[in-house]
Amino acid sequence: MNLSPLLLLLTVLLLAIMSMRWVSDRLDQPSVLGELLLGVAIGNVGVWLGYPFFEIVMNPAAAAATPESSEAASHTATIFHALAELGAILLLFSAGLESSVTRMKQVGGQAMSVAAVGVIAPFALAYITCIVLHEQMSIAGHLFLAATLSATSVGITASVLKDLRVLGRRESEVILGAAVIDDVLGLVLLAVVSRIAATAGFSIWQIAATLGTAILFVGAVILLGERIAARGTSLFRKLDRSNGLFLFPLALAFGFAWLAESIGLAAIVGAFAAGLVLTDQMTPATTTSTDDEPTTTVSHLLAPLERFLAPIFFLYVGMQVNVSYVLDARTLALALLFTVCAIIGKLVAGLAAGRCADRLAVGIGMVPRGEVGLVFLGVGRGLGVVSDSLFAALLVVVFATTVITPPLLKWAFRDQRTSQTTTP
Amino acid sequence: MNLSPLLLLLTVLLLAIMSMRWVSDRLDQPSVLGELLLGVAIGNVGVWLGYPFFEIVMNPAAAAATPESSEAASHTATIFHALAELGAILLLFSAGLESSVTRMKQVGGQAMSVAAVGVIAPFALAYITCIVLHEQMSIAGHLFLAATLSATSVGITASVLKDLRVLGRRESEVILGAAVIDDVLGLVLLAVVSRIAATAGFSIWQIAATLGTAILFVGAVILLGERIAARGTSLFRKLDRSNGLFLFPLALAFGFAWLAESIGLAAIVGAFAAGLVLTDQMTPATTTSTDDEPTTTVSHLLAPLERFLAPIFFLYVGMQVNVSYVLDARTLALALLFTVCAIIGKLVAGLAAGRCADRLAVGIGMVPRGEVGLVFLGVGRGLGVVSDSLFAALLVVVFATTVITPPLLKWAFRDQRTSQTTTP
Repeated sequence: MNLSPLLLLLTVLLLAIMSMRWVSDRLDQPSVLGELLLGVAIGNVGVWLGYPFFEIVMNPAAAAATPESSEAASHTATIFHALAELGAILLLFSAGLESSVTRMKQVGGQAMSVAAVGVIAPFALAYITCIVLHEQMSIAGHLFLAATLSATSVGITASVLKDLRVLGRRESEVILGAAVIDDVLGLVLLAVVSRIAATAGFSIWQIAATLGTAILFVGAVILLGERIAARGTSLFRKLDRSNGLFLFPLALAFGFAWLAESIGLAAIVGAFAAGLVLTDQMTPATTTSTDDEPTTTVSHLLAPLERFLAPIFFLYVGMQVNVSYVLDARTLALALLFTVCAIIGKLVAGLAAGRCADRLAVGIGMVPRGEVGLVFLGVGRGLGVVSDSLFAALLVVVFATTVITPPLLKWAFRDQRTSQTTTP
Repeated sequence: MNLSPLLLLLTVLLLAIMSMRWVSDRLDQPSVLGELLLGVAIGNVGVWLGYPFFEIVMNPAAAAATPESSEAASHTATIFHALAELGAILLLFSAGLESSVTRMKQVGGQAMSVAAVGVIAPFALAYITCIVLHEQMSIAGHLFLAATLSATSVGITASVLKDLRVLGRRESEVILGAAVIDDVLGLVLLAVVSRIAATAGFSIWQIAATLGTAILFVGAVILLGERIAARGTSLFRKLDRSNGLFLFPLALAFGFAWLAESIGLAAIVGAFAAGLVLTDQMTPATTTSTDDEPTTTVSHLLAPLERFLAPIFFLYVGMQVNVSYVLDARTLALALLFTVCAIIGKLVAGLAAGRCADRLAVGIGMVPRGEVGLVFLGVGRGLGVVSDSLFAALLVVVFATTVITPPLLKWAFRDQRTSQTTTP
């Protein structure tokens, strides 16, 4: 097998990613936006050069049809795709590691209602928009849209909250809790979409069955997963003292991802579940060890793998965007309207936080759609339920909501802090 | 693309690898032997089950010819192969990181002559063996045999020397220095083999040209590489403060590997060179920083990636062995004779250490062939210059020399320590 094109591709991409980080840093934007834009640029420069890279990425078999070095190009596309998918699995696994079953129980009803409204409201608004615009879309497309619009990117909000030093406040706790539940709800929606797309055609009965499977899976994971993770961790740490702490979580992530896919859910649902059950397991070990050994936490050990593969996933998503679709008037209109739906929907969700929290601040905190939304986008694209223009429009939504949140959040909390200083 | 088979494969392999580590630990053997055996077992169990896994691994296209889920099987084989190759690149990169240009200059003539004899003597003995046995082999096959027999596995010797607390002695310095030079000489031989295999047919002129290219490449790397590495590191650490230290070395390894392959050398030659020029670059940073920040060294950051991919490479090598070839009388005879050649050749090399060191101890220390030899074996296999029986025989040589070294080394140094206490 000729690895040469893959090696060159990885070299160029890694150098470009690092350069783009500098630009993102300068513009005070999250690096994921830079990586997406870089992907769009690479994908579309290929079109101008007569080498439509995103078509090769989307369809390795088509690339193999070109005469010269066809096999190497096809292999490179296959491997690049697989690395991106492994990146998405690691992203969701690490999102799961940051959450925990215990924490989801703690944030309780308040976060739960914010999350539920935060999924339903943007979806309902987007659904109405589609009807008003006479936008034809399958039921799978609609559900997929709902899943993508539901997933709050907790990373961006959390870093802003941290900068503002308001992480301990009630609003922050509700936002972070609701974001985790958001992800779970989005994953359940995605499970339904996956099943519908796989069987081509659907019935209410089928949706119910898939929902049942998803709920059973999540339930089984929460009930049994923690025990499997706990026993597995202690067993494999004994078996392989030097690498068990790193390789077992990786095996658990891959294994749960495989399991989820086998029962008709998305692989990332399983990866997230693996992270969810591992957090609680690892917490005691982390809290008993002092800061002397920062390398002993699972997320620390997984970080290099994620740092290498996650940007490749974002590039991969970006590469799939054909700029000519984005510049289409209808797509731009869809993007604008969906962005408005996404923002208003989450502000409405903030109202569900109740009176004991600043509802506007909570709503703004839920606005950004980032990594997880992109992973959903990738899955939907792979399932073929997302048209080119919808894909492009949703990518714009992810961009717009991510860029708009930090300034709005600063304004919301400053406003609240001044009002508080005047009130007492 | 259906990633499901890959996810299941990775899960099962990771769990099996961790279990095998426990067995290796119990038997006081290096984990690489366990991973090889595991690979052989997995590959050959497939034969008994009517699913010859090593054939699929060797030839994904053939796997695609089987009727059911052919595309998924072919993709899985391609991706697995690529992960194994990336593992080999990381292995050689990290071997390069452990060595440095400065250190190679320090150990000087003594190590140089031990290394040179250590390459020539086993090769000459193996060559004679082939002639005596009337074993037909192409010149490329012979050179490849020489490369595999030359590469000392410094890891196994170093850990034994560390256990015996003789790492600071003259013998240990000569062994470790010669092992590094061994690797370089082996890589040069491999470069020649690659070129010959690629062009099919050879002449003295061609060998000279390839040698010239290899020497120019190594020379250019030593002269310019350090500057590129130094400037690149400082540039990309500024551009990407959080990940530059990790992603730039990775990009350099992939880039040099691509460069080496482009000029007709093996990719691993480039990866080793990248590690070689990075060591010196990183050493100042490592020595100025105290132990408070162990995470800032390149090898520390790369470790998780290597821990995941290196075992996959060893499994991959093991999977390619058809046990029925090993059990062939001729192969076993070849394996036995090559093992004897490998051991005697390195003991002869020990004589070149001169009178100011225990020559027997130096020779024994050079005996094990491990990771690097396996990487060479993989390259030769990929180039098609190694027959199935030669491949199986050489794997047995790697096994035998690795298992035999620790006890012999302990005996040699104990012997010397008693003789020293009586002499003064």
